[in-house]
Amino acid sequence: MTAEIISVGTELLMGQIVNTNAQYLSQKLASLGINVYHQATVGDNPARLKETVRHALSRADIIVLSGGLGPTGDDLTKEAVADALARRLVRFADAEETLRARFLAMGRDMTPNNLRQADFPDGSELLKNPNGTAQGCILRAEDKIAILLPGPPQELIPMFENEVAPRLEKLSGVKLYSREIRVFGMGESSVEYALRDLMRRQDNPTIAPYAKTGEVTLRVTARCEDETMGEALSLPVIDEIKKRLGDVVYSTSGVTLAGVCAGLLMEKNATLAVAESCTGGLLSSVLVDIPGISDCFMEGAATYSDLAKCRRLGVLSATLDAYGAVSAECAKEMALGMRRGALTDYALSVTGIAGPGGGTAKKPVGLVYVALADEERATVKKVLLSGDRARIRALAVLHALDLLRRRLCGLPVAQE
Amino acid sequence: MTAEIISVGTELLMGQIVNTNAQYLSQKLASLGINVYHQATVGDNPARLKETVRHALSRADIIVLSGGLGPTGDDLTKEAVADALARRLVRFADAEETLRARFLAMGRDMTPNNLRQADFPDGSELLKNPNGTAQGCILRAEDKIAILLPGPPQELIPMFENEVAPRLEKLSGVKLYSREIRVFGMGESSVEYALRDLMRRQDNPTIAPYAKTGEVTLRVTARCEDETMGEALSLPVIDEIKKRLGDVVYSTSGVTLAGVCAGLLMEKNATLAVAESCTGGLLSSVLVDIPGISDCFMEGAATYSDLAKCRRLGVLSATLDAYGAVSAECAKEMALGMRRGALTDYALSVTGIAGPGGGTAKKPVGLVYVALADEERATVKKVLLSGDRARIRALAVLHALDLLRRRLCGLPVAQE
Repeated sequence: MTAEIISVGTELLMGQIVNTNAQYLSQKLASLGINVYHQATVGDNPARLKETVRHALSRADIIVLSGGLGPTGDDLTKEAVADALARRLVRFADAEETLRARFLAMGRDMTPNNLRQADFPDGSELLKNPNGTAQGCILRAEDKIAILLPGPPQELIPMFENEVAPRLEKLSGVKLYSREIRVFGMGESSVEYALRDLMRRQDNPTIAPYAKTGEVTLRVTARCEDETMGEALSLPVIDEIKKRLGDVVYSTSGVTLAGVCAGLLMEKNATLAVAESCTGGLLSSVLVDIPGISDCFMEGAATYSDLAKCRRLGVLSATLDAYGAVSAECAKEMALGMRRGALTDYALSVTGIAGPGGGTAKKPVGLVYVALADEERATVKKVLLSGDRARIRALAVLHALDLLRRRLCGLPVAQE
Repeated sequence: MTAEIISVGTELLMGQIVNTNAQYLSQKLASLGINVYHQATVGDNPARLKETVRHALSRADIIVLSGGLGPTGDDLTKEAVADALARRLVRFADAEETLRARFLAMGRDMTPNNLRQADFPDGSELLKNPNGTAQGCILRAEDKIAILLPGPPQELIPMFENEVAPRLEKLSGVKLYSREIRVFGMGESSVEYALRDLMRRQDNPTIAPYAKTGEVTLRVTARCEDETMGEALSLPVIDEIKKRLGDVVYSTSGVTLAGVCAGLLMEKNATLAVAESCTGGLLSSVLVDIPGISDCFMEGAATYSDLAKCRRLGVLSATLDAYGAVSAECAKEMALGMRRGALTDYALSVTGIAGPGGGTAKKPVGLVYVALADEERATVKKVLLSGDRARIRALAVLHALDLLRRRLCGLPVAQE
């Protein structure tokens, strides 16, 4: 079964608001096993709206429209749908009553144009709107279904959840089982190259890659009757992906790298502290974003100045003089000093040049050292990162976390 | 002149990401005097993509596509546009060189599929991408213009600003002068209410509001012949906005709250350190994201555990016992302790309950204290924030920064 989403509103075409409805509806329809191949946005113009509705009806089984159900002359969605499906607009007595009661309850006079909100294409099933005056409707005509929803998300979302989703579940009879595989340490194109035959021959489950800053995520999605069947279809594919990509796969259930590290620390009852220079608190902030992190994360120090590195972490001035703050030696002393001071099992450190200024021929922008101190020693990794300041800082955080993950899992680290 | 926006990507159709590119491009095109009557979103499917491109070309003078320029078999935008405009894809030697240099600089091997990123429709003008591997292009064919941009906003936005906008300005004969007014401490609907007559009668300049987490941004955009004229048209409107909104306006030139604070500190040759509990490094990270911040930002401490608060900042156990870590008293001692230890002019602190757990009837999730220590005393502000953990932490950071801004500007603070 296929659906198209049509968002109606000149404010969308002018870029005055971002179209969160299209995302919400797409997610919901996908999870119901209904394929969305097209989304369209069109303004409050009768001719263009009608053409868009007709075009969508020519391709899809279901069209879902949001917006244009209000009382003003600009609200034309019901007219356009009625026209495309050869229905008349008729006044629904129930809807009129609901409307009058609502205005009464709000203590507001109902201007005559509001009555348009009681008109729907003949044969519609109405959808309640406890959060606004515009009711929605579902119209089945020929072999098509048109679903008309109000534009404001605080009205559309409850209407979809309560009125539309139960009807569509019955219709589609499909469930989806979806797993997110997360990868750090291999670029998107290399991941896809390694999996190209799997991705080409995919049918059920499907494999969809998408890239975030420095990471690759693969979504494996199976159409199934229930979770057991979904798992049975997906697991062989997930295992094959893990086998091909190796230990750069850090989660097969959508957990972030920080989340994986937190989980491993808690499992081992171990504690962590972090010392940061160029990332300046970002590593610690990413960890603190995890609810319940206080069980393993003790503290962080954003020792941005040299003075702070010496005073807070015990980095030696001699080290800074001899090697500079961006050096393997400084990274090591930062990690060791943080671990000593915070009395934790592990300490991570990051020092580097995030740019745009401060780079030299020998130490270019993007040069970053991450270090991990444990009960035995400090391990350092040197990386050369590209991008703007924000990207370099974000990547540095991931490299630090990956160093910890590899230590906690007993995996090898390419050391300097 | 009319344009259509085509967003390419299965992740959009699946609802995995929200389509902020369509909003950004719509705003930009509208402000260039180019009418957008349709936006379309389509997945990585060759037949549907081609049909969508053809359909858009049949209606509009300009089509702007985002996404699908990458190295993988799913990236088909260039093929679809070339096909619709009867051009061949050819390898651009310059683009190949840029690509190889980029991979070399990143120290990464270039898999063969990456070379697809050097292929463009014959006759294209290439658009530089300093933030990614996929260059964009503009193709003029028959009386149509196709503009192909990469999908990631951090690549698309700079490419549009630097490469596309100047070309479209020439085409449309319209120049744009744009200023971003940033507001913290007043909700979007209150801002719009205060400015409703200005916004209603707007023509040139236009005023477009958009909300970020906890902030409101107004973009004032004037169509003009040159910058002087643009400024002359905009300044009276900007002054009127400032007059109506008052000291919640913290920038009229698009500078972030952290950026404004950094500027004020540098102006006064003053230094800052921060101590964080629930924000856990986010405040310090937001500051460190500003290039050159080392002139005024010395260090941060993410003292997440009580032990760290006592040992690193000198918070008294008696204070924690009597009032708890989330209290005005603790916030004060954190700020005073940080300032003393870091030897800075100012120190900010944040302590609160970010949730989802940890709330009580007396101290609910969202209760946050921010404090500022200066040479005379510590000032505390108590706020009650709503939303999820990430939102509460982000808002807490803004409240801390606003406390500093008000102190540095001599503005009043509503204290506890």
